[in-house]
Amino acid sequence: MADNVIAPDAGNGLYGRRAFLRTGLTGSLALLAATAEGEPEAQRAPWMRGPGGPMSPLGAPSEHEAHVVRQPIASQPGTTGSGASRTPLQHLDGLVTPSRLHFERHHSGIPDIDPAQHRLYIYGLVDRPLSFDLASLARYPMVSRLQFLECSGNSAALLAPQAAPLDCAAIHGLLSVSEWGGVPLSVLLEEAGVAPEGRWLVADGADSAVMSRSVPLEKIMDDAIVALYQNGERLRPGNGYPMRLFLPGWEGNASVKWLRSLKVTDQPAMSKDETSKYSDLQSDGQARLFTFPMSVKSVITSPSPGLTLGTPGFYQINGLAWSGAGRIRRVEVSADGGKSWADAELDTHVLPKCATRFRAAWRYSGAPGVLMSRATDETGAQQPTRASVLRNRAPGSFYHVNAMQAWGVDVQGEVRNVYV
Amino acid sequence: MADNVIAPDAGNGLYGRRAFLRTGLTGSLALLAATAEGEPEAQRAPWMRGPGGPMSPLGAPSEHEAHVVRQPIASQPGTTGSGASRTPLQHLDGLVTPSRLHFERHHSGIPDIDPAQHRLYIYGLVDRPLSFDLASLARYPMVSRLQFLECSGNSAALLAPQAAPLDCAAIHGLLSVSEWGGVPLSVLLEEAGVAPEGRWLVADGADSAVMSRSVPLEKIMDDAIVALYQNGERLRPGNGYPMRLFLPGWEGNASVKWLRSLKVTDQPAMSKDETSKYSDLQSDGQARLFTFPMSVKSVITSPSPGLTLGTPGFYQINGLAWSGAGRIRRVEVSADGGKSWADAELDTHVLPKCATRFRAAWRYSGAPGVLMSRATDETGAQQPTRASVLRNRAPGSFYHVNAMQAWGVDVQGEVRNVYV
Repeated sequence: MADNVIAPDAGNGLYGRRAFLRTGLTGSLALLAATAEGEPEAQRAPWMRGPGGPMSPLGAPSEHEAHVVRQPIASQPGTTGSGASRTPLQHLDGLVTPSRLHFERHHSGIPDIDPAQHRLYIYGLVDRPLSFDLASLARYPMVSRLQFLECSGNSAALLAPQAAPLDCAAIHGLLSVSEWGGVPLSVLLEEAGVAPEGRWLVADGADSAVMSRSVPLEKIMDDAIVALYQNGERLRPGNGYPMRLFLPGWEGNASVKWLRSLKVTDQPAMSKDETSKYSDLQSDGQARLFTFPMSVKSVITSPSPGLTLGTPGFYQINGLAWSGAGRIRRVEVSADGGKSWADAELDTHVLPKCATRFRAAWRYSGAPGVLMSRATDETGAQQPTRASVLRNRAPGSFYHVNAMQAWGVDVQGEVRNVYV
Repeated sequence: MADNVIAPDAGNGLYGRRAFLRTGLTGSLALLAATAEGEPEAQRAPWMRGPGGPMSPLGAPSEHEAHVVRQPIASQPGTTGSGASRTPLQHLDGLVTPSRLHFERHHSGIPDIDPAQHRLYIYGLVDRPLSFDLASLARYPMVSRLQFLECSGNSAALLAPQAAPLDCAAIHGLLSVSEWGGVPLSVLLEEAGVAPEGRWLVADGADSAVMSRSVPLEKIMDDAIVALYQNGERLRPGNGYPMRLFLPGWEGNASVKWLRSLKVTDQPAMSKDETSKYSDLQSDGQARLFTFPMSVKSVITSPSPGLTLGTPGFYQINGLAWSGAGRIRRVEVSADGGKSWADAELDTHVLPKCATRFRAAWRYSGAPGVLMSRATDETGAQQPTRASVLRNRAPGSFYHVNAMQAWGVDVQGEVRNVYV
């Protein structure tokens, strides 16, 4: 069957969402990957010749998937718990990040909290200061939603003057997606009764660094929750057990883990975590504070470094796109370094403040190519080029990088981080 | 603050979805669970006094959650691998079932498959018999969707003449929800070319029992996939690693695990697994075959047995509703054993052939009550009573039980499986 009956949608053999709507093309897409072969072998494989393993209280991944772990792991020198571990995006598909692979960023390690002793306090400019233990919080009406969480320091590696030999996790792995479930903070604050002069909420964590962030009350009343569940089960310790603040679409550090207190105030606390850190220095010497929302962004997770292409023919291109402003409207992909673009197919679930999986197909000829993606969200905001992101940044400023990623594919089929 | 300003929506203090739309009530709902208390203690908890634990390649649940495991586990006498393990629904919230807690039902244990050696064969009434290894399948366009999987034997405990002292997992725990990702079978069959007389697809597993089911081609071309991913990562061995058939909304056993071959035929195979098992004997002596779709169903997961209610006041009622026919349209709840009903709130995600989390609030007075739920799907099908499910069933027939569950709450606040 000829694989070139239908013209590509963009340069260097790229097929976009049209390919997913037309059976004629999916037929021709497919053939190069299957092997023409007869019936199943009469000889049974070794694992078919006797009973397999038993049931167990807890399932585990196959030993053949032992390479799927969070890496790299970076700790600041002299500490054990200040650093980050990264989601191996290049090994995952779909939306959900398995909780054991969710990225972590800690400022003083993971506290070992006894949930029976832990309390959440709401105080400050309120009519009725309140405290909650875990059991009492579970009596409130809850909500659960699939949403992304991203560290504001994610993708900062793209600021390096030369493209570093890093994989998708090392560059973009401070991004994960979970179903987050918990109690809307609007309910708890209504119960406490916010005083008229209340404008901000200062959230403190129960880690020894006492992570502290100020959040505008408007956001809190809109969609903030005290999260108790992650992907159906109680939060993992590395993600705030037994409870964390969760602010959909906003930079991860503001979703304070191990949440211990919420103080209603009339102005931000100007805590160490929002002045010395998590502010954005500009080239004019001014620092922008409280730059919470995560901007529109996307990355191709496959093919990506570490996944070498084999024989020429069709390959699935897929990746994730997300925006703190709402839903993803469009993802475009390129196989020629941005010279031409095709619309990618958006997979089933396109949810607000969640990642969206996008897919396209590439007829890899064996010649080099440069794969890129660019996302547009429902507000019309489009992911910028690297050059645009670099503009007006002070040296050393590295938060909120949402530049397009380019993956170069060389004649050996090896994939590398490149700049275009 | 008076907690009875607003009248309940149904008998015995039940508040339905109206409660989630009215801030006045959520305020009054809340107060009984919080404690009026001052500022956070000046004394830091022990875990705040020094650095916490380090980053790690794989996260793990808190040791305080060690009770959240699959149980009970039942194996047929004399076997290690024929039986089932059950999802602890009473400890979960939201939609996603963590993969390590997904229910399992095996007929000859879990085969230890080398993914590099495994092949999928498509043969029979096709123009081009084909085989696929894992790497070649990954080159095809994929889809991923959140959907439920339920064993057709789930909830059969409700057929017992007396209500057994079982918890939610033991009765309903053969139901889990995952994001399933893989290659649409329509794409692979189009490539193989189905002969005009092809009507069925016979799927065989690579377990030593060679699980074998016949599936109508119409379903296969509609929404069947060869699943490679579960909740973002490769399938777990207990759920078919490295690949399984996945048939959205249909009884679990037909989604053949460890999928090895797909044979296109003109009639069903009448395999052991669809004649001696997985057929429904009626009281007239006739057996119904190929009863694939799972019917509309719901269960309250909290409160449920094992979760004793404490002080009187408001409690969240929540649970899961699902239907193999599509989306859930409505869930009603009762606190008086079905005498009166209120509409529950449906949580954020209401997806086709997926479970939907529903929520309501109950002002528990300390007096006994009987909690029930009943679901209606988008086709208008409504979950039946237990009496209706029992009608026309032959003794020993136990598949496809979708009766309403009743949980009795006694004066001690203990919750039990009861019949009404």
